[in-house]
Amino acid sequence: MSVDGHNTYTPGYKPTHTTHHEWRTAENSAAYLLPYIAKLVEGDPNIKLLDVGAGSGTISASLAKYLPSGQVVATDLSEEILGRAKTFAETSGVKNIAFKQASVYELPFPAASFDVTHASQVLCHLDRPDKALAEMVRVTKPGGVVGVRESDLRTICSWPDIKEVRDAYELMAAAMDQAGGSGMGGRRLISWALAAGVSRDSITQTYGTWTFSEPSDRRMWASAMIERFKTGEIRERALRTGLATTGGMEEMIKGLERWMICEDASMGLVHGEIVIRVV
Amino acid sequence: MSVDGHNTYTPGYKPTHTTHHEWRTAENSAAYLLPYIAKLVEGDPNIKLLDVGAGSGTISASLAKYLPSGQVVATDLSEEILGRAKTFAETSGVKNIAFKQASVYELPFPAASFDVTHASQVLCHLDRPDKALAEMVRVTKPGGVVGVRESDLRTICSWPDIKEVRDAYELMAAAMDQAGGSGMGGRRLISWALAAGVSRDSITQTYGTWTFSEPSDRRMWASAMIERFKTGEIRERALRTGLATTGGMEEMIKGLERWMICEDASMGLVHGEIVIRVV
Repeated sequence: MSVDGHNTYTPGYKPTHTTHHEWRTAENSAAYLLPYIAKLVEGDPNIKLLDVGAGSGTISASLAKYLPSGQVVATDLSEEILGRAKTFAETSGVKNIAFKQASVYELPFPAASFDVTHASQVLCHLDRPDKALAEMVRVTKPGGVVGVRESDLRTICSWPDIKEVRDAYELMAAAMDQAGGSGMGGRRLISWALAAGVSRDSITQTYGTWTFSEPSDRRMWASAMIERFKTGEIRERALRTGLATTGGMEEMIKGLERWMICEDASMGLVHGEIVIRVV
Repeated sequence: MSVDGHNTYTPGYKPTHTTHHEWRTAENSAAYLLPYIAKLVEGDPNIKLLDVGAGSGTISASLAKYLPSGQVVATDLSEEILGRAKTFAETSGVKNIAFKQASVYELPFPAASFDVTHASQVLCHLDRPDKALAEMVRVTKPGGVVGVRESDLRTICSWPDIKEVRDAYELMAAAMDQAGGSGMGGRRLISWALAAGVSRDSITQTYGTWTFSEPSDRRMWASAMIERFKTGEIRERALRTGLATTGGMEEMIKGLERWMICEDASMGLVHGEIVIRVV
């Protein structure tokens, strides 16, 4: 879905939907990028990092700790969520961070402004991820890196194998596709980078995962999904566009409730990761 | 398939089928276990590690470097492959390693003999993975760990999305199931450990991946699959049991050949990983 050439964030910003976002850290969501940051900091402790589509800002604040003498700028299309990100950084005692409302399609920075430009779960919501990537490359200095990590909602490893749980993940992927994004963004990162004019030689691509296996993690993850199916924008979208019925979503919720209390349950969600070396 | 209560190794040991095995290292196939080994080595530099079902032995030799004052014992059911593992260790200059033919169901060691007991891609070939895990726990000292990593052939993230490539992975998973193992072993590790009598509290479970994205890695991976479909035991099994036709396998081979030369191609294969803290 496009508004004035921008994309909206399909899942929405209600507190019940962002609880899971606040679990996100540099360690569980940007580990692939940390060695590159460490190397750049070694060369210049005062490097600048841009976090695009930062949302709740927990990854931004977490990344800021890896460049204690450097500076992080976190942007998002939503002023509302940036306010929450700012509060989070303040209460976490992170001082080397600034916030700015901006679209990833038109970043309000001169070319070659940042040493590292990062996005997590942003491109999968866009109808022009290639254009966003080109803009991220533009604001990055030669010698710097762009790092992007996107989930792949059709590559999920879940046990016990419950049909209604599989249906729930497929609904999430289909809703992302239907909203103009991509439910399989994780695996498309190289193709998006090539479309953005990046040469294949400048790209390193890996796959990472999120694991939900400990009882508290399973409950946190499944509860967030259940809340989305009960009151989230995905419910409204699914019913409006015929992706699912009320009854179907009830069954998915019951499946997730069964899954999260199984002693042997676990879930792995695959993410694609690319690092672009800017030249 | 069971022989005298043991399971055979479905893919077979022809050199063309083991090339990919020799790519395996502690870093790309046992990274989840390295922090546990480092901690144990800190407490006692002379620890002993058992690598069960070691096959070509490249992971065993690679693990041996993490305990330079310790000792690795590598076992396998096949004397033939252990001979190759021994040669590999010798040519790699790894000296703290010994080899012993053994079944994982009846390890020829007293209880509590090892600080670390490891297996990679072994349990998915067995009809009694729980029994094997119990035996691995038996030979491990209290305070030590058992680490197991198994692929999940039904959790594959592949781009471009080529139907015949998806069919190829499904055939591999189905052949594993058909042979008495599990094509979804990666996600079943906690359930197998519980069946082996391990308490949930003693288990840490994560998901990791193998990525094949660089041109040379894509070629290595796809070529190994193509060789299996052309001359491997999987071909004979698929035709004998009706899992695939000659024509179907030809299409899969063509799909893999197309995939491996795509500039934007990548593939992520999910692995389940568990660490059992032995008490």
